[in-house]
Amino acid sequence: MRTVDWVDGAVRLIDQRALPWELQTVDLRTVAAVAAAITDMTVRGAPAIGATAAYGMALAALTSTADTMDSLRADLRDAAKLLKASRPTAVNLMWAVDAMSAIADLGDHAGPDALRDALLTAANKVADDDVAINARMGAHGNTLVKDGFTILHHCNTGALAAVDFGTALGVVRAAHEAGKQIHVLLDETRPRLQGARLSAWELDRMGVSYDILPDTAAGYYMQRGEVNLVLVGADRVAANGDFANKIGTYQVAVLAKENGIPFYTVAPTSTIDLSLATGADIPIEERDPAEVTTPYGLALVPPHFKARNPAFDVTPHRYLSGIVTENGIARPPFTESLKAAVAGTMK
Amino acid sequence: MRTVDWVDGAVRLIDQRALPWELQTVDLRTVAAVAAAITDMTVRGAPAIGATAAYGMALAALTSTADTMDSLRADLRDAAKLLKASRPTAVNLMWAVDAMSAIADLGDHAGPDALRDALLTAANKVADDDVAINARMGAHGNTLVKDGFTILHHCNTGALAAVDFGTALGVVRAAHEAGKQIHVLLDETRPRLQGARLSAWELDRMGVSYDILPDTAAGYYMQRGEVNLVLVGADRVAANGDFANKIGTYQVAVLAKENGIPFYTVAPTSTIDLSLATGADIPIEERDPAEVTTPYGLALVPPHFKARNPAFDVTPHRYLSGIVTENGIARPPFTESLKAAVAGTMK
Repeated sequence: MRTVDWVDGAVRLIDQRALPWELQTVDLRTVAAVAAAITDMTVRGAPAIGATAAYGMALAALTSTADTMDSLRADLRDAAKLLKASRPTAVNLMWAVDAMSAIADLGDHAGPDALRDALLTAANKVADDDVAINARMGAHGNTLVKDGFTILHHCNTGALAAVDFGTALGVVRAAHEAGKQIHVLLDETRPRLQGARLSAWELDRMGVSYDILPDTAAGYYMQRGEVNLVLVGADRVAANGDFANKIGTYQVAVLAKENGIPFYTVAPTSTIDLSLATGADIPIEERDPAEVTTPYGLALVPPHFKARNPAFDVTPHRYLSGIVTENGIARPPFTESLKAAVAGTMK
Repeated sequence: MRTVDWVDGAVRLIDQRALPWELQTVDLRTVAAVAAAITDMTVRGAPAIGATAAYGMALAALTSTADTMDSLRADLRDAAKLLKASRPTAVNLMWAVDAMSAIADLGDHAGPDALRDALLTAANKVADDDVAINARMGAHGNTLVKDGFTILHHCNTGALAAVDFGTALGVVRAAHEAGKQIHVLLDETRPRLQGARLSAWELDRMGVSYDILPDTAAGYYMQRGEVNLVLVGADRVAANGDFANKIGTYQVAVLAKENGIPFYTVAPTSTIDLSLATGADIPIEERDPAEVTTPYGLALVPPHFKARNPAFDVTPHRYLSGIVTENGIARPPFTESLKAAVAGTMK
């Protein structure tokens, strides 16, 4: 089952808010519902959001009553605006919407229905490509993993964060499928607990050995020499290698460097935003403090207690050992290697 | 109201497991109940545990049916063993039990009832001294706080962690009472959420401005330059300044150093264990993983999901700007300054 799929004229998503308790899906039939599902994190994970947005654009075209190219393109511009506003940090969302908009605005189509067909074909290709790209990242990343390694991981970057397979946890999957014995320490990743709820669910099903850690314990295990490698995902990578990822990634990066542990992000080239020179310009979403105080309806403290909830942080490139892309592993200096990764001209 | 008190022949504790929802107390009438209350964290915080254990020894004497000095001393040796086994990391527990044992074994008492009286008097003195010591630490620590500071804090070190007043949050209290405008960022401190549940409850009642943070966000605010000072407590300080404290303290220390932020622990001299050369020999308690997966009965993930739960970590002394004691602020090199702090001969 794919995390994001197209079934009978609807966008079908695994409802990630229901996991790890129930594996259920939702079918979305309007672009507004797709945007809402991105905002409320029914779907999350940069590559999964990208594919969902591509299908959202196809859905907007198919549900539009426009009968001229101009009016259909106008509807698609509205849909693009709505989707882009659904979450600010992950660039894959912008990348997918821009790609679909380019097809609509610049493509040569026989008429509105031909454009509708072209957008659905393109969205399916985005989804299929994502699976293939993740498998290639898994193969590249697997070269970093030795038999017997303990890998520390933050948030969720598995099949649930992509269309299928996964990015950083895709590397874990590739290593596991290659027969390597590995153990994964999963930061629970407060406030939304993607590590405890989603990554543990995936590794449990895969039969990979793991332990959930409170986020407070990541440094403890690094300090004791029990971590060989740190793998995380990325929501946006700037041209110099600075990257935004789930809140807490920066801390893990600093601790890895302090303890001499290799630290990699695993990110498809659709996550690389060469238009940003550094990570300073990546917008950071601040979400509802109730996610901290009352996660999933479980009240940890009284509702009047004050809390902050930044959803992402930016890790400066100096903490990175490398960036695993589908085109190979980019190494410092990243201003050079990321250009080559995006162009597909890595050696 | 004191966190630990002696009322009508019983040890009265604020039940910290019921906060922040209800302020309720439990009266304990056997030493076994006192030891259990330490183990199950009805009472926690190194100084509070120390005072509780002192009262536990007094209670053991008062409830013992021994009518000779030898048999009373034997009962007290059993009580000491039981109390010392209740939690392994905080040295104040050992310090308080050893002090009471010294009075029992080495003191000159007219008979069993005189020893009983002497132990209750001594336990009351431990409790009273703790309040006075915390006030002195507050005054010393307040010299580190400037008007307008934002202070980051881990776990709970307030009145609830001591008999009254608090250690690191005692410094916050002293600064607040001195009229300084301060803001406190409270690490929620998973798994048991002492920051979100206890520290926020205390600051809320005191009227000090605060925000609860997921533990993943501490580095984010440090990186943005929004933190002026980090204050934490300690469960045991070795002779070289290495110290054990709540899991996650090491991470905060590394992040403070990386971002050039002063990092202090606030610890009474009863927390300093000069018998340990370094922190490597401090025993680290590993608690039930259910505290991670099902905190306070709130199931975050299915019960078969695997988790780890180390309760403390050790922060190497090189991350410490200083150690605030009741006798003054110890500075590097700590092997010298801690000896002077314990001897009360600081300049």
